Amino acid sequence: MAKKGVLTPQHEDFPRWYQDILNKAELADNGPVRGTMVIRPYGYALWERMQAEVDQRIKAAGADNAYFPLFIPESYLNRESDHVEGFSPELAIVTQGGGRELAEPVVVRPTSETIINAYFSKWVQSHRDLPLLINQWANVVRWEMRPRIFLRTTEFLWQEGHTAHASREEARVYAAKILHEVYRDFMESVLAIPVLIGYKTEAERFPGAINSMCLEAMMRDGKALQMGTSHELGQSFATMFDITFLDAEGNQGFVWQTSWGVSSRMVGGLIMAHGDDQGLVVPPRLAPIQALVIAVRDADGVVDACHGLGATLTDAGIRAKVDDRTGTGFGRRATDWELKGVPVRVEIGPRDLEQGQATLVSRTGSEKQTVVLAEVPKRVEALLDDIQTDIFEGAVSWRDSQIADASTIAEVREAAATGFARIPWADLGPEGEAVLAEEAVTVRCLQRPDGSLPQSGEEPDLVAVCGRSY
Amino acid sequence: MAKKGVLTPQHEDFPRWYQDILNKAELADNGPVRGTMVIRPYGYALWERMQAEVDQRIKAAGADNAYFPLFIPESYLNRESDHVEGFSPELAIVTQGGGRELAEPVVVRPTSETIINAYFSKWVQSHRDLPLLINQWANVVRWEMRPRIFLRTTEFLWQEGHTAHASREEARVYAAKILHEVYRDFMESVLAIPVLIGYKTEAERFPGAINSMCLEAMMRDGKALQMGTSHELGQSFATMFDITFLDAEGNQGFVWQTSWGVSSRMVGGLIMAHGDDQGLVVPPRLAPIQALVIAVRDADGVVDACHGLGATLTDAGIRAKVDDRTGTGFGRRATDWELKGVPVRVEIGPRDLEQGQATLVSRTGSEKQTVVLAEVPKRVEALLDDIQTDIFEGAVSWRDSQIADASTIAEVREAAATGFARIPWADLGPEGEAVLAEEAVTVRCLQRPDGSLPQSGEEPDLVAVCGRSY
Repeated sequence: MAKKGVLTPQHEDFPRWYQDILNKAELADNGPVRGTMVIRPYGYALWERMQAEVDQRIKAAGADNAYFPLFIPESYLNRESDHVEGFSPELAIVTQGGGRELAEPVVVRPTSETIINAYFSKWVQSHRDLPLLINQWANVVRWEMRPRIFLRTTEFLWQEGHTAHASREEARVYAAKILHEVYRDFMESVLAIPVLIGYKTEAERFPGAINSMCLEAMMRDGKALQMGTSHELGQSFATMFDITFLDAEGNQGFVWQTSWGVSSRMVGGLIMAHGDDQGLVVPPRLAPIQALVIAVRDADGVVDACHGLGATLTDAGIRAKVDDRTGTGFGRRATDWELKGVPVRVEIGPRDLEQGQATLVSRTGSEKQTVVLAEVPKRVEALLDDIQTDIFEGAVSWRDSQIADASTIAEVREAAATGFARIPWADLGPEGEAVLAEEAVTVRCLQRPDGSLPQSGEEPDLVAVCGRSY
Repeated sequence: MAKKGVLTPQHEDFPRWYQDILNKAELADNGPVRGTMVIRPYGYALWERMQAEVDQRIKAAGADNAYFPLFIPESYLNRESDHVEGFSPELAIVTQGGGRELAEPVVVRPTSETIINAYFSKWVQSHRDLPLLINQWANVVRWEMRPRIFLRTTEFLWQEGHTAHASREEARVYAAKILHEVYRDFMESVLAIPVLIGYKTEAERFPGAINSMCLEAMMRDGKALQMGTSHELGQSFATMFDITFLDAEGNQGFVWQTSWGVSSRMVGGLIMAHGDDQGLVVPPRLAPIQALVIAVRDADGVVDACHGLGATLTDAGIRAKVDDRTGTGFGRRATDWELKGVPVRVEIGPRDLEQGQATLVSRTGSEKQTVVLAEVPKRVEALLDDIQTDIFEGAVSWRDSQIADASTIAEVREAAATGFARIPWADLGPEGEAVLAEEAVTVRCLQRPDGSLPQSGEEPDLVAVCGRSY
């Protein structure tokens, strides 16, 4: 006799489960303009924590934040032919400003390569100005025909890094450094989402790039999600925007460039990588609320004890919050915090208080622990570490259970129905890729057989990881 | 025989000094689309520090961050008549999206009252949902005919708070709390900029507000800068967007609202409130770099000693940076850091190192101090405190020296040529205000004679503070 849940069960209808969770956990709503979204406070708190963690790693990788305009003259986009061809169908265009028709229409940035490189051209003169390492946190707009909150939205939030280097090799190494030290480290150690890394095939490359590296994760429905990308742009933008430098020997040359980004779609990844039929599961290192202290009911001293414990946990460096809304039933509130995926719930009721204890409930475990009040901070800390590990290990086993080796297109098709299919790239090739694409199965990345990142997509003996994707 | 400076002197041409400093301190550039700006890394670091300090205070005041779409259906703006009238001339309008003409044109948000209140209407049902306290960090667009970097730009960065309350009084108190505890506290204790607070006259009110409170600062050229505003919106948006709630007695009513914001124009305020002919002067509590450790030249161990000291300062909680670019002359580098307004410069040369000491130079003082290496962190910390106080006190005396009492329009006109003029509002009135406005002298705020914030602009015996403004 199963209890009727708040959410549509995942196995019944995964897309509906996703919509339910957005709504019930108060993460986001659709905006009034097609494809836009309203990110509600709890959803935004998840994004803010992602930003803080990614930003810290970007700064450690030596890049500085800056800000470039939202509006780009249409002519800038036209300068790079692959780039404009790739983005034209998705552009939002401003034709009126300040009450008049504009002489030249203005594009709302879909990405900022063109406008940023127009300035790099002014800032770079000599090899002493290199490498130039810039990042920006911004909103971008790509008109979406099939929008889905967090995953594909007309406007989304992201960071985009843009760099210029003296040599192709240096640019490649930096793009790979971002992939490993910023993105992969963040995704695996904070989001607890294991990622496969590799190169995109030519068909899947970023418009204007000579190589695109990516990170791919497995969702709970067996579909892949691209979590981030890091591109080698070669010299195409440098040529179009005339970004040249004098090297130490006095020779002039074009710079070599990279660009790289992760976006608010990672919130969607977080939901679908860890969520279950009870709601979100937020890994402790990311969680805006790591421990929720909840007053079971308003009896002698319970609410005060909760606030006291909340303050103690905060002092111990734990992101804690107190729920003292005893006007609402305990069961309903407990379900709400479960829906929001808070890792640890610390319950205090009159009986607990009488006995000088609290009850600890983990979002991922089933047992409750009774703990003496003075021990709560230490036990919560240990529990948070355990939960972080459990969530990551759970995601790794799930992902690994959904990977199958294939040697024919038919086998790829079958394996991709429920997860990732691995096939030697030499056996698949662009022709096989095109066949699969018609069935919405794509090559997610090309990687070495041991899963490591090759030096390019042209290395021999690469494996193509295929799947259906968001 | 004065040394020819890097900047146009302030007394010679203040606007040119401002342009010079934007350029030479590498703060910002004009964007390619009229009125837009590129915020360069050092300028953005100033803004990032402002954001962090303001955000912390907003959260302490109980508001949660969220994010609403950039694009607003044109029809939303049309719902509030004062609001649309106020903003129509400044709108940027998207008429094409995804390769097609849009059925309904979309406005790029000039501010978000309309779109946010459309959602408040869904989220608020009962008095239990109140107060609803939301903040968003975002870019907004208002087409500018006379743009000026940081001060008036077509696109700018800001935070906008939006709240809904059960009573008019509660809304007023919250708007005043934001003014005092978030904005004023931040501006005076971090930016070291003293502000006058008060209410806007009806002529200067935010379109759609029933009352606008503001904070006004005095720049080094005797002109005023509005640093932030906090509005009581009454029930106008609640009525237009149908935001109603049931009170504890079961009666239905419209909510009372506020909105409030500060923007990247504060960077302009920082430049013009403290800057001098040598460059920016950044107060230590704001400074992205509080102490710059500079290697005078590359001799035995100097560069290593600088990095060692830099690490020690960082460990002591000081935002420190090391300049080891000994390939560039010391004088030029020292001038550059002066231009950037870094509060304390710690110089280490071979002679210093030999004697186990460093030389401390304050951006605001003229004397150099020689300090034993082990003592540097403690001395830098003390110096930073002194500099913060000095900058604030300097700004207060300057501001106070530029305020004059007036009793006629002629006297206001004269005093406003160099600063603030104070005149009883009863003596000036809307007619006098209109006369002065023709000469670009405006009432910056209405305040009590003792400088405190009244309960509204309708209180008797208020004083009008008048000035020319940015």
